[in-house]
Amino acid sequence: MPENPSAAMLVIGDEILSGRTRDSNMHHLAGALTRAGIDLREVRVVSDDHAAIVAAVRALSAAYDNVFTSGGIGPTHDDITAEAVAAAFDTPISVRDDARALLEAHYKRSGGQINEARLRMARIPDGAGLIDNPVSIAPGFTIENVHVMAGVPAVFEAMVASVLPTLTGGAPLLSQSLRIERGEGEIAGPLSDLAEKYSDLSIGSYPYVKDGVFGANIVIRGHDGARIDAAIIELNEAFPT
Amino acid sequence: MPENPSAAMLVIGDEILSGRTRDSNMHHLAGALTRAGIDLREVRVVSDDHAAIVAAVRALSAAYDNVFTSGGIGPTHDDITAEAVAAAFDTPISVRDDARALLEAHYKRSGGQINEARLRMARIPDGAGLIDNPVSIAPGFTIENVHVMAGVPAVFEAMVASVLPTLTGGAPLLSQSLRIERGEGEIAGPLSDLAEKYSDLSIGSYPYVKDGVFGANIVIRGHDGARIDAAIIELNEAFPT
Repeated sequence: MPENPSAAMLVIGDEILSGRTRDSNMHHLAGALTRAGIDLREVRVVSDDHAAIVAAVRALSAAYDNVFTSGGIGPTHDDITAEAVAAAFDTPISVRDDARALLEAHYKRSGGQINEARLRMARIPDGAGLIDNPVSIAPGFTIENVHVMAGVPAVFEAMVASVLPTLTGGAPLLSQSLRIERGEGEIAGPLSDLAEKYSDLSIGSYPYVKDGVFGANIVIRGHDGARIDAAIIELNEAFPT
Repeated sequence: MPENPSAAMLVIGDEILSGRTRDSNMHHLAGALTRAGIDLREVRVVSDDHAAIVAAVRALSAAYDNVFTSGGIGPTHDDITAEAVAAAFDTPISVRDDARALLEAHYKRSGGQINEARLRMARIPDGAGLIDNPVSIAPGFTIENVHVMAGVPAVFEAMVASVLPTLTGGAPLLSQSLRIERGEGEIAGPLSDLAEKYSDLSIGSYPYVKDGVFGANIVIRGHDGARIDAAIIELNEAFPT
């Protein structure tokens, strides 16, 4: 398949690793990137640990075209993502006037008070661009190829919607799937032949067990809809229901 | 907090990265490890790509006490995990008699046929121990500190149950949480003081937006239940409902 721009995601949060919270941002971003023609190639989840975040940001930023982070940019003591991302790029970070103005206007409208904790959310690395947050105003930011976003799903999703139109995508990945109610062991031989014949497509087999019956969903992905159609027809003929 | 044994997870699967499937194995493993007193420190998700799997297995195996992988050990052409894990340890891999015997007995009982594709599931690296799979028989395996398990959630969960009792755990991580219906910006100051006072505990703030109202779940974790109780009481006093 032709190469689309690549991406990685970095999820920052002890609550995911302890099993307390089930992450939903990864699934959301994965779908949004696929529709935009950007290939999500790797996801990492790390804890609220400065060194771990710095190392992951450096590794992913060097390896992929785009990096999206989720979590750790709020006002509390465990929100250390902005500092760590700045450190990853050896860039100074401080309260920036444009971000502070956004917050001040917001709290003025809502009758709240800006305070030291809330000002933490205006700490932005030098040279970073702000990411619009229509939900709760405190902005995310983009530095180099890294997009730093909030962990709260409603805010994360709003920030993804702000960032994606600014990125160059490729051809959207098309897919069709066929459910075959046979064990993968019976499907594997013919499927391997099909994968060889249609080497321009990606053919995946995702097994399941339902009510004690084994089956598999075969998913065929690629950028050429007609080729996918042809492969699905052949697969259907090989395994008539 | 005293150091528990550490762990990482490696999820292998294009279907997660494309957004087609929402992973559930990470959340299951995270909870099971927390109860067992093993700290899950990092998760990586990579695609069905030999080089990516080899690199991730090597990096995680070197950095953590235990590594758990999920996905890619079935009979189809895209099941390449076993080969990649063997390559990560420079170990030969072939159809092993003990694994083959399990599969032969299973297909004999169920009236199925063993074939070339199914025999792929008996490919086990030299020296690896088998992981029992009561759901669909084809075993996982443990090589060095890496536990290689299936991606189908019912099978993954059964294999986790087979492996965990064989590992040395630490003290289970205890936690209590308090829901505070105020924006994090109001909570952050007192919370930071509390985190400093109870530096033996881990105090996390997980914000939410519900019906337009901002709040946060404060989660206090540690190994000493009495200390957690004391911290929760202080927190409650600082933010009476």
